[in-house]
Amino acid sequence: MIDKLIQKIQKTQAPIVVGLDPMMKYVPSQIREAAFAEYGETLEGAAEAVWQYNKGIVDAVCDLIPAVKPQIAMYEQFGIPGLIAFHKTVQYCKEKGLVVIGDIKRGDIGSTSEAYAVGHLGKVSVGSQSFYGFDEDFVTVNPYLGSDGVKPFIKVCQEEKKGIFVLVKTSNPSSGEFQDRLVDGKPLYEIVGEKVAQWGQECMGDSYSYVGAVVGATYPEQGRILRKIMPKAFILVPGYGAQGGKGADLVHFFNEDGLGAIINSSRGIIAAYQQEKYAKYGEAGYAEASRAAVLDMKEDIAAALAARG
Amino acid sequence: MIDKLIQKIQKTQAPIVVGLDPMMKYVPSQIREAAFAEYGETLEGAAEAVWQYNKGIVDAVCDLIPAVKPQIAMYEQFGIPGLIAFHKTVQYCKEKGLVVIGDIKRGDIGSTSEAYAVGHLGKVSVGSQSFYGFDEDFVTVNPYLGSDGVKPFIKVCQEEKKGIFVLVKTSNPSSGEFQDRLVDGKPLYEIVGEKVAQWGQECMGDSYSYVGAVVGATYPEQGRILRKIMPKAFILVPGYGAQGGKGADLVHFFNEDGLGAIINSSRGIIAAYQQEKYAKYGEAGYAEASRAAVLDMKEDIAAALAARG
Repeated sequence: MIDKLIQKIQKTQAPIVVGLDPMMKYVPSQIREAAFAEYGETLEGAAEAVWQYNKGIVDAVCDLIPAVKPQIAMYEQFGIPGLIAFHKTVQYCKEKGLVVIGDIKRGDIGSTSEAYAVGHLGKVSVGSQSFYGFDEDFVTVNPYLGSDGVKPFIKVCQEEKKGIFVLVKTSNPSSGEFQDRLVDGKPLYEIVGEKVAQWGQECMGDSYSYVGAVVGATYPEQGRILRKIMPKAFILVPGYGAQGGKGADLVHFFNEDGLGAIINSSRGIIAAYQQEKYAKYGEAGYAEASRAAVLDMKEDIAAALAARG
Repeated sequence: MIDKLIQKIQKTQAPIVVGLDPMMKYVPSQIREAAFAEYGETLEGAAEAVWQYNKGIVDAVCDLIPAVKPQIAMYEQFGIPGLIAFHKTVQYCKEKGLVVIGDIKRGDIGSTSEAYAVGHLGKVSVGSQSFYGFDEDFVTVNPYLGSDGVKPFIKVCQEEKKGIFVLVKTSNPSSGEFQDRLVDGKPLYEIVGEKVAQWGQECMGDSYSYVGAVVGATYPEQGRILRKIMPKAFILVPGYGAQGGKGADLVHFFNEDGLGAIINSSRGIIAAYQQEKYAKYGEAGYAEASRAAVLDMKEDIAAALAARG
């Protein structure tokens, strides 16, 4: 799947992933009203609104981008109906040929991590049968519990040719509280990065590993260091746009081959119509606004990479 | 809710939580076969088997214990039908008067953590209405992303009078890989423990905080130290029984008042009938075997606490 992701990045010339992190306040009123008219102001109504909203965006941008990253929390908040909308979104994006990165940040120990891995990437056995649960292509994994928590995911990745992105240095302001603490003079995130490189050796694609890392765009200097520590790990970079990261901050996340990173934008794309810059599209044109925002982001990143020379 | 948990511990004289972590290999054949006869060997069939299995255990032990801890991964592996069984289990346990600790180990940043908090502990807004999603009483939270990731849970806890247990030192063999790394001569788990104590000041019950901690029974010495660092935090202690923790290992997790800890056992209780010690109950008597195992665990812990003097 890492090879497929790279092929799609090369084909679209866009190392971009669109974060499908729907919040009700982003959903245009015409979609919200139609969903509530059908299902009422219920969890089912919210889930339907989210699904229709996603579908519009995916239809508008799917030819421009290699991948999407639905954030499961934004669906899970609506309980079971929300998770049904998550599952539908994953399936629809795959039908459209997109690589789907489930941003689930799961992580537990032994058999419990195995259950998450099976439920999100692999197949679960039921009697003599087996079934995919959510069936994403990649998922994000929290490393706090150590190798026991990560290796069950790697095992399923090997079987299914899928992948993970391990949280190394997250984009939020307080990420340093634990991740930056110095261990023998070295920040914890570097130690986690070293582990990612080590875990990644166990499942290599053609040029990159199935085990990638999450490093926030808001920390470009750390990105430069981690890029060197994990040369074969693809880096999923959140924090571009709404969180403050800019194209110029991103160049150090890429390798010399122009690969090795994929930049996420969520709000900046999916709620573009709410920005002054794209206000002319209006609520009715929210999907077209998202398309314009993807094109602008693509140009910003390409210019930054070209300026690197 | 921490006050309710303490009242129930005092009433049952059992600082015990039963981990409802169903695996298909634990489910007695009569339950499995009945579920497959009705729903086929499908995700729905698996979910029905898990639910009936849980119900039998809960009915058999609910008068003996204060709380249950369903591990959501074991349900999530069966996709949407599995999560419906999780939700049914949470609701049923609450109807039976049990405190429900959702072992979800979620953790993200800002608005995303807020979505998890709202979905599992609070109410989500849909138009002019609001709804509970999964509605557990407590959840477990992963601290790797720092305060940004934890505070949205605390906010919901304050509103809903519910609680969290933050992962500090987990019970698994490789937990030390990152958690034990020395920062200024102090292991990372102590630094996380200090944060738990600090976060906990923001929402106190009568004698303990709504912000608790997870510390594995397999690390009794660390438990002794963390008990002192977080005097007002209830400690949720996994790893008893099947993972190797014994009653005598547990005494340091309790405060002088005999409170401050709640010990989890999952496999050791829910699959007791598969142990030689309880084999006489057979598959048909699996729930009674669970009851016997709870009574033995209660006695083991009481004896250890009494021996402490």
